[in-house]
Amino acid sequence: MNTDIIQVRVDLSERGYDIHIGSGLLQKTAQYVQSATPLTHAAVITDSNLKTSHAQIVAEKLAMEDITCDLLTIPAGEASKSLTRMEQICTELLTAEADRHTVIIAVGGGVVGDLAGFVAASFGRGIRFIQIPTSLLAQVDSSVGGKVGVNLATAKNMVGAFWQPSTVLIDPLVLHTLPEREYRAGLAEVIKYGVIMDADFFQFLEDHVEQIHARDANVLKTIIHRCCQLKAEVVEKDERETTGLRAILNYGHTFCHAIETVTQYGQYLHGEAVSIGMECAARLAESMGRIDQQFIARQQSLLTACQLPVTAVALDPAALLQAMQHDKKVEHGKLRFVLPTTLGHVELVDDVPAELVQAALTG
Amino acid sequence: MNTDIIQVRVDLSERGYDIHIGSGLLQKTAQYVQSATPLTHAAVITDSNLKTSHAQIVAEKLAMEDITCDLLTIPAGEASKSLTRMEQICTELLTAEADRHTVIIAVGGGVVGDLAGFVAASFGRGIRFIQIPTSLLAQVDSSVGGKVGVNLATAKNMVGAFWQPSTVLIDPLVLHTLPEREYRAGLAEVIKYGVIMDADFFQFLEDHVEQIHARDANVLKTIIHRCCQLKAEVVEKDERETTGLRAILNYGHTFCHAIETVTQYGQYLHGEAVSIGMECAARLAESMGRIDQQFIARQQSLLTACQLPVTAVALDPAALLQAMQHDKKVEHGKLRFVLPTTLGHVELVDDVPAELVQAALTG
Repeated sequence: MNTDIIQVRVDLSERGYDIHIGSGLLQKTAQYVQSATPLTHAAVITDSNLKTSHAQIVAEKLAMEDITCDLLTIPAGEASKSLTRMEQICTELLTAEADRHTVIIAVGGGVVGDLAGFVAASFGRGIRFIQIPTSLLAQVDSSVGGKVGVNLATAKNMVGAFWQPSTVLIDPLVLHTLPEREYRAGLAEVIKYGVIMDADFFQFLEDHVEQIHARDANVLKTIIHRCCQLKAEVVEKDERETTGLRAILNYGHTFCHAIETVTQYGQYLHGEAVSIGMECAARLAESMGRIDQQFIARQQSLLTACQLPVTAVALDPAALLQAMQHDKKVEHGKLRFVLPTTLGHVELVDDVPAELVQAALTG
Repeated sequence: MNTDIIQVRVDLSERGYDIHIGSGLLQKTAQYVQSATPLTHAAVITDSNLKTSHAQIVAEKLAMEDITCDLLTIPAGEASKSLTRMEQICTELLTAEADRHTVIIAVGGGVVGDLAGFVAASFGRGIRFIQIPTSLLAQVDSSVGGKVGVNLATAKNMVGAFWQPSTVLIDPLVLHTLPEREYRAGLAEVIKYGVIMDADFFQFLEDHVEQIHARDANVLKTIIHRCCQLKAEVVEKDERETTGLRAILNYGHTFCHAIETVTQYGQYLHGEAVSIGMECAARLAESMGRIDQQFIARQQSLLTACQLPVTAVALDPAALLQAMQHDKKVEHGKLRFVLPTTLGHVELVDDVPAELVQAALTG
C-alpha cells in the first residue's frame, strides 16, 4: 500500500490552500493542522456517530501538542444543518471561550462540514477552519471549495457562505469503517466527476468496479486524488459561482434537491438522490436531442454496478417540479439544468421546458 | 438649504461603493438604486415603526420603475437581531421567489441594517444589498463598512459577516421625524468620531450644539458627511478588522456591549450605552496616565450638552466585567481596550489590568 501523502493545491490567491491525501493522515493531524495555520485553541465539531472515534483521535493528537481542544457534537443527520443548530454551536463556542483566533475543525461527513464551515464563516464574523472529511462524499466533493451553509425547511443549502478552509486533510483509511450504504452513496459524486469532466476517469471507474467494492486503498486514493484535482480546477476558475462554470458540479443536483425536499431528507441519502438526479438529467438531455441512448446506458450501468438507485419510487412529479422552482439555480423563475453533451462534458442550459422536465421525472 | 447630493467613495476595489448624502434623496431612490446595481426584484426590509412611511416611499418609487418589490417587516427593537428572525426573513424571501438577482434594501436603523445585511450575506450564499439608513446612528456609522450580523443571547453581534452594500443612500430629512431620544443616542457615535480621529470636528460639534438640537439641515449634512468620510477612511485601510486599525471605531464599545448585555438590551439605547462607555474608557485611560482630567471634562461636557447619560445606574461591576470577557475584542482571555492618547487619537491597548477596568466602571 502506498503510504505517501499527496497534495492538491486549490489556488485562490490569499484564500488558497492545500488538500493533503494519505492513508494514516489522521494520526498526523497536529503536524498538518499547525503547518496550515498556527493555533492554540481548536473547536472540533463532529456528529454523534463519530464522537468516539475519528474526532477523538484528532482531539487527542492536538492536545499532545498543547493545543486547547473542545469537542462539540451535533446529532448525526441532515436535520442538523439548521440555523437553530448553528445558534447552539455558536453559543457553545462562546462558553468554550472561543475567540477570533480559535480554529474550527470539522471532522465528519458533508453535514458536519457544511454546518461547521458556516459557523466558522459567521462566528465573530469569520474565523479559520479546517476540514477533515470522513465520508467518501465529503472527501471527494463537499469538503473542498468553500461552500458552507444550512437548509431552510423548504430549501436545501439556501443560507450560507463561501468560506474556504485553511487546509483539508483526507485519510482514505477512515473509509473502511464507513457503513456500506453511505460508502455507495459517495460513489455517485465520484461518477459525477467522470460524467461532467473526465471520460478517461469514467472509464477508470468502469474498469475498477471490483476494487471499488473492496475499498482497495490504492484505487480509493487515485479516485479521491482525481476528484479533488477536478474540483480544485473548477473552484479556481469560478470560486463564487458567478461565471456559471462552477454550476457544472451541480449535474443531477436540481433533480436531487427536489427529491430530497419532497422526501424531507428522510428517504434517500444525498448521494442516492444524486444518482437518481443524474439519471433524470440524462433522460432530459436525451429528450432534448443532446445525447444518445448509449450515454444513458453507460451512466446507468456504472451507477447500477455501484448499487445506486436510478429511479425514485412513488414520488409526485408535480411536487418535484414545484420544489425545483425554489432551487438556487432557478433564475427569475426559469428552469436551468446542467446537461451533458457527451461523456466528460456538460453545459448549463437555460429555459428548459417544464413538460420535458416532468417527462424526465416519470422515466 | 443646500439640496445638492454629496458623494463619499468607499474604495474597496471590486467591493467599493458610493455613499450618497442629500436632503430629499429618498424621493430619488429608484434612480440611485438602479445606477448602483441594475435590478428587477427588490426585497425592502424594514421594521414595524417604519413600515408605513420611509419604506413605503422606497417601495413605491421602485414600483414606478417596474421593479417588483416585496416589503418585509420585522418587529422594531434589538431583539430582532437574532438567528430565529433571520430564518423567518429568509423563508419569507423564498416565498417571495427571491433568487440570486434579488436586491435586499434595508430601510431603517442599525437593527434593520445589521439583520438585513446578514440576510443578504447569507441568502443563496450572498446577494446584493443597499442601505437606506433612517436613524442618525445608522447614517453616521452602522450603514457604512459592511459589518452585518445578529446577536447571541449572551453576546452582541457575535454571528455575522463582512458584506459590503452596493450603495448607501442617506437622506438627512428623515431625521426630522426621529424620536428625540433616538436622535440624541445617535449623537454619541458622532462625538465618538471627533474623539478618535478628528479634534477639529469635535470642536465643530462643541460650536454647534444649538443647531444640533434644532436638527439644522446644513449642520446635519456636514456632520453625516464628515462621519462617513472618517468611517470610509478606516474601512478602506482595514476592511475585515485584521490590522487593529478598524478596532478604533469600537472606542467605548467594550464597556457599551457589557452594559447592553447586563441590562439585556432593555434599559439603554445603543448610543446611550456608547456614551456611558466612552466616559468609562476615558476614566480608564486617565487611571493609566494616558490622558489628563481636561480630556475627560471636555468629552463629558459635550456628551452632557447632547443630553446623553455618562453613568450607568445601579449595575453590578462584577457582572459587567464578566460580560466583557465575551467581547469579540478579547483575545485569548486578555482585556483589550481602545483608549485615547489625546483628543482626536486613540490606540488599541492590550493587557489592561482588570482592577483598573472595575474602577473605571464604578466611576
